[in-house]
Amino acid sequence: MSTKRVYNFNAGPAAMPLEVLKRMKDGFMEFGGMSILEISHRSKEFQAVIDEARGLLKELMGVPDTHDILLLQGGAAQQFAMVPMNLMEGSADYVITGHWSKQALKEAQIVGEPKVIFTTEEAKFSRVPKASEIKPNPGTSYVHITTNNTIYGTEYYEFPDTGNVPLVADMSSDILSRKIDVSKFGLIYAGAQKNLGPAGVTVVVIKKDLIERNPRKIPVIFRYKTHSEKGSLYNTPPVISIYVMMLYLRWIKEQGGVAEIERRNVRKAELLYDAIDRSDLFKGTTEKASRSRMNIDFVLPTQEQTDKFVAGAKEKGIVGIKGHRNVGGMRASLYNAVTEEAVLALTGYMDEFRRKS
Amino acid sequence: MSTKRVYNFNAGPAAMPLEVLKRMKDGFMEFGGMSILEISHRSKEFQAVIDEARGLLKELMGVPDTHDILLLQGGAAQQFAMVPMNLMEGSADYVITGHWSKQALKEAQIVGEPKVIFTTEEAKFSRVPKASEIKPNPGTSYVHITTNNTIYGTEYYEFPDTGNVPLVADMSSDILSRKIDVSKFGLIYAGAQKNLGPAGVTVVVIKKDLIERNPRKIPVIFRYKTHSEKGSLYNTPPVISIYVMMLYLRWIKEQGGVAEIERRNVRKAELLYDAIDRSDLFKGTTEKASRSRMNIDFVLPTQEQTDKFVAGAKEKGIVGIKGHRNVGGMRASLYNAVTEEAVLALTGYMDEFRRKS
Repeated sequence: MSTKRVYNFNAGPAAMPLEVLKRMKDGFMEFGGMSILEISHRSKEFQAVIDEARGLLKELMGVPDTHDILLLQGGAAQQFAMVPMNLMEGSADYVITGHWSKQALKEAQIVGEPKVIFTTEEAKFSRVPKASEIKPNPGTSYVHITTNNTIYGTEYYEFPDTGNVPLVADMSSDILSRKIDVSKFGLIYAGAQKNLGPAGVTVVVIKKDLIERNPRKIPVIFRYKTHSEKGSLYNTPPVISIYVMMLYLRWIKEQGGVAEIERRNVRKAELLYDAIDRSDLFKGTTEKASRSRMNIDFVLPTQEQTDKFVAGAKEKGIVGIKGHRNVGGMRASLYNAVTEEAVLALTGYMDEFRRKS
Repeated sequence: MSTKRVYNFNAGPAAMPLEVLKRMKDGFMEFGGMSILEISHRSKEFQAVIDEARGLLKELMGVPDTHDILLLQGGAAQQFAMVPMNLMEGSADYVITGHWSKQALKEAQIVGEPKVIFTTEEAKFSRVPKASEIKPNPGTSYVHITTNNTIYGTEYYEFPDTGNVPLVADMSSDILSRKIDVSKFGLIYAGAQKNLGPAGVTVVVIKKDLIERNPRKIPVIFRYKTHSEKGSLYNTPPVISIYVMMLYLRWIKEQGGVAEIERRNVRKAELLYDAIDRSDLFKGTTEKASRSRMNIDFVLPTQEQTDKFVAGAKEKGIVGIKGHRNVGGMRASLYNAVTEEAVLALTGYMDEFRRKS
């Protein structure tokens, strides 16, 4: 590349491993005299790509045979609607831990009559519930949670035990960042653009018995069953996004799989939270037990200092750290492809900024 | 590239201009120290990409100010559902000219009670209707047509006059292949993967007064109004697909715009139909007045000859010419990026095959 790479802390779409980008550059035009953008989605070449992508997801996430893996379009925002369209019979329970949980709830309210069983809104979304705080309503269709809250910087470290009620999780911002027990979930969904690929493809892991559930008459394109039966090739898939996701998943495997990725993510988050905690200038905004390893929010005492910090960071090639407009301050997203080197550049700059303040 | 380019007649995803692929290769990693896959969809860099893509669509298609341009996900298959969800009040009229019209009808039947006002199924979809054959029902919400039938190889050369009833058109396989008068359409939709880009992004051109129509309670994500109000950035868009589409649209403009593209498409189709017509071995499958310039279907007398023809073509680097499983025989798709050189390679091979038979 002709230009120097920046330290990219974008909240998503986000940093990709340089190795994945290089492989894309070297490989995308070399598909039997065509580029990956020109091959048929019905070709054996693309079948090999999608098979490998789904196989790697199964292996890396540890998806049991009780669950199917679908590759869809429309991001988490479309899943906010598809989940209740496909799974809500009567009512469903929603746990509200931030902006995106609320968005999921809003779509469910259009489809039916979901219930909010827990919210941390009065605490400004500074924490997620303990497992023991979540009690499903009798007869509810599912319990919906958001495992990581991108805007508010909180993350679940224990998941509610919902018994026979399927647990549905929006994992858009922490999928594949750590080991989870997929068998405890009825449905997991995530846009690829934070931890495993580019925007344009959405991963849905769904327990097979839920695929059959269909309480209402919905268009064929919005049924999980359709995409399950057709191996995610009911309609033309986002070929290039799936291809790059496959390259990214290969890279995760090469690094040592999710165990090693998690180890790095723990380390990166520790480095940044330590830099916040050792300072009396920077402040974290969330309860320690709920601190996200993916999106780390912190604030400075004044808006002037905030602006100065963000501008000074940019000069050092540290980008994407401005907080979400809903909360202000700073947010650094430390997804899988963000290197320890990048985190050290940020913490070094924070220490320097503090000394000069 | 290390490998020789083949002559690619795929039905979609399909051939892309080599220049566009080269520009993608040279440019996709160079977005201010990031790649296009890593930048935020809220960044000014991506705003410039989506603005240019929509601006070029407006200019090249001649979209009047009465219409808005949306860039969505899910392809035509998702539009089959979104069109009736957003626009069908009471009933809507469908014109059936092939497999994809029928698919559009099926989704509309789930949403409401559409009516078939014309079908060429009894003629095995070998033609499209004349404008005078289409009479909308009184009070219908819209008339839906498929302007080019990818599988059966037919195309409209005159569009029905539906008066005050909005004309809705699936233009997935002929958008930007020829000049059309957009003002005559209420809504046009097309996946990008045939004539203007890679799979993963869907173009919707909609008359602004139709954006306000919303006869039923539908999820926010499926409302045209949502995407119109947010400039197609309501949720994370398929960034890489939009970027490559922008590069493709630039290329179309550089070639001389749609007028020049249409001239080439007319010429390419003439070359291939002439090769069919001058032979008593190959036969076209459609009525001459309805012959598609995009997808040219032709047959040989026996399955053995068909297999031999397709296999022999592959040896000469001519790929993607096997007919759709519904109709058999051969199909060559001559989308915008297919060169005259490719068509001459095919017709040369056809002449040679005929002489040897």
